Amino acid sequence: MADLQRLAITPQQIYRQQVFLTVEQQHYLGRVLRLGVGDKFIVMDGEGKWWLAKLTPDISIKTELTAILEQEISIQNELPIELTLISALPKGNNFDQVVRQSTELGVTYILPVTSSRTLLKPSLQKLKRWQKIATEAAEQSERQVVPKIRETLEYSAALSLFENQILSTNYHKYICIARNNYPLLLESLLHNQKLESIVIAIGPEGGWTNEEIERAIATGFQAVSLGKRILRGVTAPLVALSLVAAVLEIQRFPLL
Amino acid sequence: MADLQRLAITPQQIYRQQVFLTVEQQHYLGRVLRLGVGDKFIVMDGEGKWWLAKLTPDISIKTELTAILEQEISIQNELPIELTLISALPKGNNFDQVVRQSTELGVTYILPVTSSRTLLKPSLQKLKRWQKIATEAAEQSERQVVPKIRETLEYSAALSLFENQILSTNYHKYICIARNNYPLLLESLLHNQKLESIVIAIGPEGGWTNEEIERAIATGFQAVSLGKRILRGVTAPLVALSLVAAVLEIQRFPLL
Repeated sequence: MADLQRLAITPQQIYRQQVFLTVEQQHYLGRVLRLGVGDKFIVMDGEGKWWLAKLTPDISIKTELTAILEQEISIQNELPIELTLISALPKGNNFDQVVRQSTELGVTYILPVTSSRTLLKPSLQKLKRWQKIATEAAEQSERQVVPKIRETLEYSAALSLFENQILSTNYHKYICIARNNYPLLLESLLHNQKLESIVIAIGPEGGWTNEEIERAIATGFQAVSLGKRILRGVTAPLVALSLVAAVLEIQRFPLL
Repeated sequence: MADLQRLAITPQQIYRQQVFLTVEQQHYLGRVLRLGVGDKFIVMDGEGKWWLAKLTPDISIKTELTAILEQEISIQNELPIELTLISALPKGNNFDQVVRQSTELGVTYILPVTSSRTLLKPSLQKLKRWQKIATEAAEQSERQVVPKIRETLEYSAALSLFENQILSTNYHKYICIARNNYPLLLESLLHNQKLESIVIAIGPEGGWTNEEIERAIATGFQAVSLGKRILRGVTAPLVALSLVAAVLEIQRFPLL
């Protein structure tokens, strides 16, 4: 099963065990992956379900291909909670890397934000590109869920989404800060015995301003450190998410 | 101090409080960083020492610049133990990213290896490039030590460096394996209460072969998992090193 190719679709593409493939998906399966009629692959709806599917000719339009869902696959590689990354946009195209690697690590939502030290507001084109990267990375890392990338928000607008009074779920909220004596993120995570949703905010290259840090703390975020070395904007989210994912997997499958 | 630029040199460049700068270093300080005579910066010898230094004209050759070490700086951002990464070479130029990010995370030695599923042997040119990337990343992440990149070895040659009988230090040895039920790396690290040197082996995109895994286990490596999702060759070393660094920092500065 691990050798089969994976294709992410939307739940709306499924009707009565049949997947209505887009032109791009037909091209991808036929030309890129070189699958032919009768070949099997895995279909994932991006919301948690996988199926074993078979490529067949479309009965209504003979020149097109369709996929028949043969069997639902029970597999669970997802983290047991919702994990949200608030990330200030790094310079250049580096956010591609953040999206790809955060997806590998199990993130559920990514909220790119602009802050005092990151002024560029990306185009809508960028958002589409990031969503595509997240979809591909979810396929490759054998996830069931495709992370959702939100449109870029201003930092304080992103924080206010997590104000306690408007949340339906309970969130553990962390903001990572360099050059400080805040508790280490790993230590805080290990003290948190409850499986609750987590949101984690990572600053731009130059760090958050003091005002931004105070604003987050006032919204209930806990200030934490990722260690003594200074991490680049692309590395910090990865380090934070690695720690969160590892602690959650321990809590879920404890050996202790 | 955090705002000062940093320059990595070799201990051999220092003689009687004076640093004999190479032509490239003079160019870097003067043209790239735009420092002038009298400006201060931080000199790091790559083996653990930092100094506050001042740029001055060379008294023997007037057209050249030299640096005078004014004061040793006591700073310690290094992990308390030696951390070695054995990494199979990923495709393309992706090893650049592994070198850069491993350096940010505190690695001491990097041993690139070829394995059954990575056949390309890099040129000596590549090694120089990686060493340069490690030097720059050590400067940027405010480390005192520049990691050393070893020449590429064949996988089993790298393992035999860590056979118990020939080691002077005690090593905890880990090999990370995808798609398995081995204990989670974080859990094993948290059980290891002694501060000992650590070596961690990360496989190529296609994973290690069974033979390679058995060989490592026979050499005393413990097989561990990095979680249920499949990580790319560039992401896996980072996840492993993030966990190691975080656990070491907790052990060193415990809040518990």
